[in-house]
Amino acid sequence: MRSEEVYEKLKQWVEDNRSHTMLGEPAQYIPALANQDRDQLGICIMDIDGETYKAGESDVKFTLQSISKIISFVALCHFKGLDFVLDKVDVEPTGESFNSIIPFEIHRPGKPFNPLINAGAITVASMLPGDTVSEKYERFILFVEGMIGHSLELDQEVYESEWKTAHRNRALAYYLKESNLLDLDVEEALDIYIRLCAICISLEDLAKIGLVIAHDGYDPIEERQIFSHDVARIAKVLMVTCGMYNSSGKFAAHVGIPAKSGVSGGILASVPPKWHSPEKAFRKGCGIAVFSPAIDVNGNSAAGTMLLRQISEEWDFSIF
Amino acid sequence: MRSEEVYEKLKQWVEDNRSHTMLGEPAQYIPALANQDRDQLGICIMDIDGETYKAGESDVKFTLQSISKIISFVALCHFKGLDFVLDKVDVEPTGESFNSIIPFEIHRPGKPFNPLINAGAITVASMLPGDTVSEKYERFILFVEGMIGHSLELDQEVYESEWKTAHRNRALAYYLKESNLLDLDVEEALDIYIRLCAICISLEDLAKIGLVIAHDGYDPIEERQIFSHDVARIAKVLMVTCGMYNSSGKFAAHVGIPAKSGVSGGILASVPPKWHSPEKAFRKGCGIAVFSPAIDVNGNSAAGTMLLRQISEEWDFSIF
Amino acid sequence: MRSEEVYEKLKQWVEDNRSHTMLGEPAQYIPALANQDRDQLGICIMDIDGETYKAGESDVKFTLQSISKIISFVALCHFKGLDFVLDKVDVEPTGESFNSIIPFEIHRPGKPFNPLINAGAITVASMLPGDTVSEKYERFILFVEGMIGHSLELDQEVYESEWKTAHRNRALAYYLKESNLLDLDVEEALDIYIRLCAICISLEDLAKIGLVIAHDGYDPIEERQIFSHDVARIAKVLMVTCGMYNSSGKFAAHVGIPAKSGVSGGILASVPPKWHSPEKAFRKGCGIAVFSPAIDVNGNSAAGTMLLRQISEEWDFSIF
Amino acid sequence: MRSEEVYEKLKQWVEDNRSHTMLGEPAQYIPALANQDRDQLGICIMDIDGETYKAGESDVKFTLQSISKIISFVALCHFKGLDFVLDKVDVEPTGESFNSIIPFEIHRPGKPFNPLINAGAITVASMLPGDTVSEKYERFILFVEGMIGHSLELDQEVYESEWKTAHRNRALAYYLKESNLLDLDVEEALDIYIRLCAICISLEDLAKIGLVIAHDGYDPIEERQIFSHDVARIAKVLMVTCGMYNSSGKFAAHVGIPAKSGVSGGILASVPPKWHSPEKAFRKGCGIAVFSPAIDVNGNSAAGTMLLRQISEEWDFSIF
Repeated sequence: MRSEEVYEKLKQWVEDNRSHTMLGEPAQYIPALANQDRDQLGICIMDIDGETYKAGESDVKFTLQSISKIISFVALCHFKGLDFVLDKVDVEPTGESFNSIIPFEIHRPGKPFNPLINAGAITVASMLPGDTVSEKYERFILFVEGMIGHSLELDQEVYESEWKTAHRNRALAYYLKESNLLDLDVEEALDIYIRLCAICISLEDLAKIGLVIAHDGYDPIEERQIFSHDVARIAKVLMVTCGMYNSSGKFAAHVGIPAKSGVSGGILASVPPKWHSPEKAFRKGCGIAVFSPAIDVNGNSAAGTMLLRQISEEWDFSIF
Repeated sequence: MRSEEVYEKLKQWVEDNRSHTMLGEPAQYIPALANQDRDQLGICIMDIDGETYKAGESDVKFTLQSISKIISFVALCHFKGLDFVLDKVDVEPTGESFNSIIPFEIHRPGKPFNPLINAGAITVASMLPGDTVSEKYERFILFVEGMIGHSLELDQEVYESEWKTAHRNRALAYYLKESNLLDLDVEEALDIYIRLCAICISLEDLAKIGLVIAHDGYDPIEERQIFSHDVARIAKVLMVTCGMYNSSGKFAAHVGIPAKSGVSGGILASVPPKWHSPEKAFRKGCGIAVFSPAIDVNGNSAAGTMLLRQISEEWDFSIF
Repeated sequence: MRSEEVYEKLKQWVEDNRSHTMLGEPAQYIPALANQDRDQLGICIMDIDGETYKAGESDVKFTLQSISKIISFVALCHFKGLDFVLDKVDVEPTGESFNSIIPFEIHRPGKPFNPLINAGAITVASMLPGDTVSEKYERFILFVEGMIGHSLELDQEVYESEWKTAHRNRALAYYLKESNLLDLDVEEALDIYIRLCAICISLEDLAKIGLVIAHDGYDPIEERQIFSHDVARIAKVLMVTCGMYNSSGKFAAHVGIPAKSGVSGGILASVPPKWHSPEKAFRKGCGIAVFSPAIDVNGNSAAGTMLLRQISEEWDFSIF
Repeated sequence: MRSEEVYEKLKQWVEDNRSHTMLGEPAQYIPALANQDRDQLGICIMDIDGETYKAGESDVKFTLQSISKIISFVALCHFKGLDFVLDKVDVEPTGESFNSIIPFEIHRPGKPFNPLINAGAITVASMLPGDTVSEKYERFILFVEGMIGHSLELDQEVYESEWKTAHRNRALAYYLKESNLLDLDVEEALDIYIRLCAICISLEDLAKIGLVIAHDGYDPIEERQIFSHDVARIAKVLMVTCGMYNSSGKFAAHVGIPAKSGVSGGILASVPPKWHSPEKAFRKGCGIAVFSPAIDVNGNSAAGTMLLRQISEEWDFSIF
């Protein structure tokens, strides 16, 4: 498929799906998120040559929020090994809410169900290498910057806002502490976790991360292995089984692309190569980043989800 | 019944029940509690003339722990009125554990089930009058000191120990905060709650408090109303329905005395008058305090519970 | 207090509380219940001489529904002994709904929390003496008829209606069976349970039962012990801690009379003697039956509850 | 890879993994299952030419048990359309046990989380076309027989055994009925569900079914589309997210093949084509059936799971 055709279609589909922003609302608990223009919808796709295909409001920056959970999982596995991480956090989906204490109390003293619910993500963040919160953050940000090729900033306003209102996450973290599932001091664990959530990112950068995950940890542009195939494989499993909050199953059924969403309205998606479909676009795989701040009841970008569904159907991106 | 006979029987029953300390263990999570002599069993009964009847290790002092929950409920109702308190905390028993988050998450955004589970007790403590934690503590301690006639001390070692390991309570408190059920700052709410738990008390003082509750808030010795009949009535309801953790129902069935236990091994009990049983001991009601540090799986003093059961059966103390 | 005064006050209070029928709705799941005149409110009090005091619609008959649970508990304890029964069913309150499976699944393989939730009541009914459902029913009905002095009828329409729609109870019963907590065949257990619920009773008969429970199993009119003091005591404990569904705690706090309600709108209440209040009405105790078919969200008669609250306040009936 | 090499390796791996039967026990609740030789381990792989590769005890027959859940889902979608089915059953994973009522009661009146937990599978079975249980069974069995080319038998002993002990499933089904999620009579719904579980199958037949699912509903041997690509896609999503009970996430992470297990010890697996790995075995996809009756704590064949893990690692079968 020619590039112009790809651009044209993307542009068309963004406009087709823009009305779905009506099906959601920007997250209300942080002023910086609540006050965004709710009609925005932007996308960036990066192919294995580093070519980017953008449409809609594609120059936005937004905070990672829960998208950071899959990146911190990858980073921790890279730094400390899969066995170390899987010993502390399970990889099972849960039907409960992402911030529920129920499954935890019922099944205690079990480890968190998976790294993409808050309990698991706090645990993962707390184990990043480094003796202090600053060191942990530094190691993480260097890992991500290494992947995208330039530096990243923390959104200080969002960070402070989340820090002040993190009551539920504090509850979860103290619960973890009481269950001996958290070695780090609770306030430090929350600090590093919330910092990761408040990292500011562009669609292009996010698409690059999606591309590397899609290519099993290999950066096809810089031609180097950033993290292992095994880590990337399990990251994709988690994205498919637990990446889209409590509609992960429906997203897998109808879209079928490994993806992780955040309440800021961003979605990170990794489309693996499909060698047998040479006529289709992006048959060598790609990374996709979508942004639209109006999120649905499950916490996923409403229009972003629908846009990905249309793209997946049209270009046969489902891994199933 | 003559005084000597009462003394004699009490002494006998203490020895009869001492072996039941084998059915429990001192609470392990605080060194100061864990290291106690596990074979102790002491009792003090105070009648309406202020006469005390003691047997066993009756000169011990111990921290209130959960016994403080019923006293802080009474104090708060006294200071702010029943309607104010019942608007914030329900008075329903729950089958879940005293520190469970489950009922709470299932039924949210409900208020805590009752003031004798941790969630309710933290809420109650947080609302004590005073602008600071110190003021709140001061007001509470003055209220209790007014009842017993002398000053009380905080067990600093227990307080610090509990403060450091209060992970589960922090989890609960942050959960309350997130549900808008806690106005005070979480750390301050925990601070006042934990201080109340760490107040050191003697059996005689505790028996006096039990006597006042038994007499509907009236101090028959000093001849003055300390808190209202209504507050005392609801305190007794709570002691019967929720006072002995998850064996409150069995305690009501087999003992039938309004009571509140703590993990330090103390039990506060209030025996209302039984005017129609003139031949029985303490027919004008009494306060009872028991101490035996080995607690059973539900958190109640093992030998203390059995001693109260025998006394209740022998002297017909059940309100049912 | 003179009889005329009692009548006059009762009549007044019934009219005072009739408007509270607005706060509820007749139970909808059975046509026979749903179609009742929702404004009815009737009461009957029986004193120890067998004198009855009636006001409002006091000649109604209605089905026992959950009121049967406390009577079947008493009957089973009478026939098989307290130890036998308490070995099969606990006596602890639960904060969950009366027909919940949650506490059960979380705490399995525990026995039912108490005999007044459906799981416990089905277990109790299944253990009544007799080799067949008919024999069990016969033994139970004879026990109750012995207390009230004449024969009782089953409301066939209600029985058949409940039998057909007993899906939730079937679920509970099969769950019990799977947990080895039910010896009888499930369909037979449900049959006997539902029959007991469908027994038709008058206010006067119900007041008589309340009187016997209030007097510790002793019938002061016929002057004979019908069941043991111990059984009556535990029945009263259960009525106080679990008798009014999920507002048992509030009923104990504000009314304070051992009572059991049913979704048909009836309430059975047992007022123990209060020897020290000679000026008050019914100081030697009484049985009370109330009927008003509009039930509140918890399943209790709305106006009936309020009427009992007023009576208890005015005549100081609370046991607390 | 040459056929001999495939055979040789399979034989080797079966022997390598046979000792893992020690990590499980045959299901105990049905005599016919409990009495099996626990050391058996057999496998059959079918490629797109209909060639079968067998090793170990490969001539066994066993009952489908939960494997029937994915087949009945496919059949129902085929007969009534995806929209019809997804309207009645969700496709979300749950962290609770396959026969739990908890998620259901908490989230009611929600539909079952997915068709592979018992609640969902009973619902699916109940909606199969046909006016009677026999007709429904007939339509289902014809659908499956059409796929494998010959007739199938019901294991009458297992069927009767399960029918008699289906207390938990009856509880679930009555719960569904009460929630208006089951149109069919409960006993009929259970009857058809249990019949499907008791269908007897060989490894070769099961491998054929796996092959058709792997090839998107297309039978590459008979060269005809049996059910739609969409139905096959969602079947694979369910197998990945919920196919292996509460270790579905770990199976996806470490094996990565869409699969469904049953407590009889069988596993159905569908390996989609991997066109870009021409040097690997079965690059055009295959169906796999494994049998080893000793099941682990999660209900999955212990040795069967380990054998699939080794095969997937060696031949790169993971879809991730």
